Amino acid sequence: MKKIAIIGVGLIGASLGMALRRNGFASAVIGFGRSSQNLEKAVQIGAIDRFEATIREACVGAEIVVIAASLGATAGILREVEACVADDTIITDVGSVKGSVVRDARVILGAKFGKFVPGHPIAGNEKSGAEAAIPDLFRDHKVILTPTAATTLEAVNQIEKLWTELGSEVVKMSVESHDRALAMTSHLPHLLAYNVMDTLLRQEDSASLLEFSAGGFRDFTRIASSNPELWADILLMNKDNVAKFCDEFKSGLNSLTRALDANDRERIIEIFSVAKKARDCQLIVEKKR
Amino acid sequence: MKKIAIIGVGLIGASLGMALRRNGFASAVIGFGRSSQNLEKAVQIGAIDRFEATIREACVGAEIVVIAASLGATAGILREVEACVADDTIITDVGSVKGSVVRDARVILGAKFGKFVPGHPIAGNEKSGAEAAIPDLFRDHKVILTPTAATTLEAVNQIEKLWTELGSEVVKMSVESHDRALAMTSHLPHLLAYNVMDTLLRQEDSASLLEFSAGGFRDFTRIASSNPELWADILLMNKDNVAKFCDEFKSGLNSLTRALDANDRERIIEIFSVAKKARDCQLIVEKKR
Repeated sequence: MKKIAIIGVGLIGASLGMALRRNGFASAVIGFGRSSQNLEKAVQIGAIDRFEATIREACVGAEIVVIAASLGATAGILREVEACVADDTIITDVGSVKGSVVRDARVILGAKFGKFVPGHPIAGNEKSGAEAAIPDLFRDHKVILTPTAATTLEAVNQIEKLWTELGSEVVKMSVESHDRALAMTSHLPHLLAYNVMDTLLRQEDSASLLEFSAGGFRDFTRIASSNPELWADILLMNKDNVAKFCDEFKSGLNSLTRALDANDRERIIEIFSVAKKARDCQLIVEKKR
Repeated sequence: MKKIAIIGVGLIGASLGMALRRNGFASAVIGFGRSSQNLEKAVQIGAIDRFEATIREACVGAEIVVIAASLGATAGILREVEACVADDTIITDVGSVKGSVVRDARVILGAKFGKFVPGHPIAGNEKSGAEAAIPDLFRDHKVILTPTAATTLEAVNQIEKLWTELGSEVVKMSVESHDRALAMTSHLPHLLAYNVMDTLLRQEDSASLLEFSAGGFRDFTRIASSNPELWADILLMNKDNVAKFCDEFKSGLNSLTRALDANDRERIIEIFSVAKKARDCQLIVEKKR
């Protein structure tokens, strides 16, 4: 059983704390965050044992430090963590983009970079804050770790164990593969969902348009309810990958609108059928899991 | 209690038949469709009393004929219906685009056009066929009727009564307003969801990309599981409205990628925040209902 510090006790951090306390992996979970109201909520719901006023105090004696703050805040937190943790403390994060975090961590952590395990649980929802925490958020979900050549095996094994004991499936891949996959399956869709809402809101009759939206629109735009600051940072940190897929998305859209314009029903049905088939197969894979 | 013919016994037609039989609005529901296997299923689950081999036979003695086939088949069905129904039979449809249907119906139905009530229940899901039928599909959902200047009040009232008795909220609007609203809240999102899947599938590593998709992607692409022929027809019939919103969507996307490129975090957060707020408000309205 380990003492674990969680820096940033939002949906992910609080869900993680709750799960680690319940399954006995942690002897104590100490939180740090910007909002004392949110931290009090986290104590109340059993996500952390207690919280401290500084990162330094939260990290005292911690064997593992989990950075679960927004990507925009991660570099600053890494600086504070580097200044206070012991040489053998393992540091990990849960950021949705790994390239920027690893770049920062390499510079900031210096000699301690070998103990840093870049991580990303593929779980979450559009909600924010400790009050949205779910202890089973990570169960049966993938967690991607992107260790570098410098990362020690011992550190990777410890973080793999942490997630495996919560029922997650740990997958290791390169930073580049991670950022590419997530740009396509998560970051681009968020940009598109926000943009659909924005397109609708730019119409003079937006209120009456919204009134006639049904379940399809609701599901399609669910991710546009996500935290704006958090997602602005994710998209900014992974903007090259996002821009590349966005260009391919636009070129696909142009092909489809040209086919509509030309009344090319067969071509449209062909594209839709392949898309449907892949979407249905993916669903079957998920159900089996 | 009325004898009702339902031409096309898929998700919408079968759900309607099931609801009308259960609530006693119909004394008999007679089905017609292309697939006898699907029609047998419809009888088995109680969606229709029986089915006939021709539209003419299905319509014998019917006081109301509901066309619930795909948009691409509607004109042909209107021709057969016109040739066999009595002068006082009320005809309605459930098509997702109203402009094309009303244009066809005006020409094809001639003197019987006054008895045609263009309709569209804002309900459904990505599934197809009678086996997907749900008797409560329309309860607490809006049904849009788009009567023209030629439509008789008596016909509108009858169809309004049919839907109201199933627990739907009937809203009347112009054909143009309907097609514009649905292009934005339903037709464009379907095109985008199919296109996201297509963009992903055009990647060499599409299988591994799909593997790391999570709940956000699943919800975002749910509508890409919809019937390809059905949706090709919907988009083709409403292509002018769809193209207009698609252009505005692309221009919004260009602004967003320019802001990403310029690291304009404030601008991105501003757009996302307004989108989130509207999305969250819409959800509250839905919950209240």
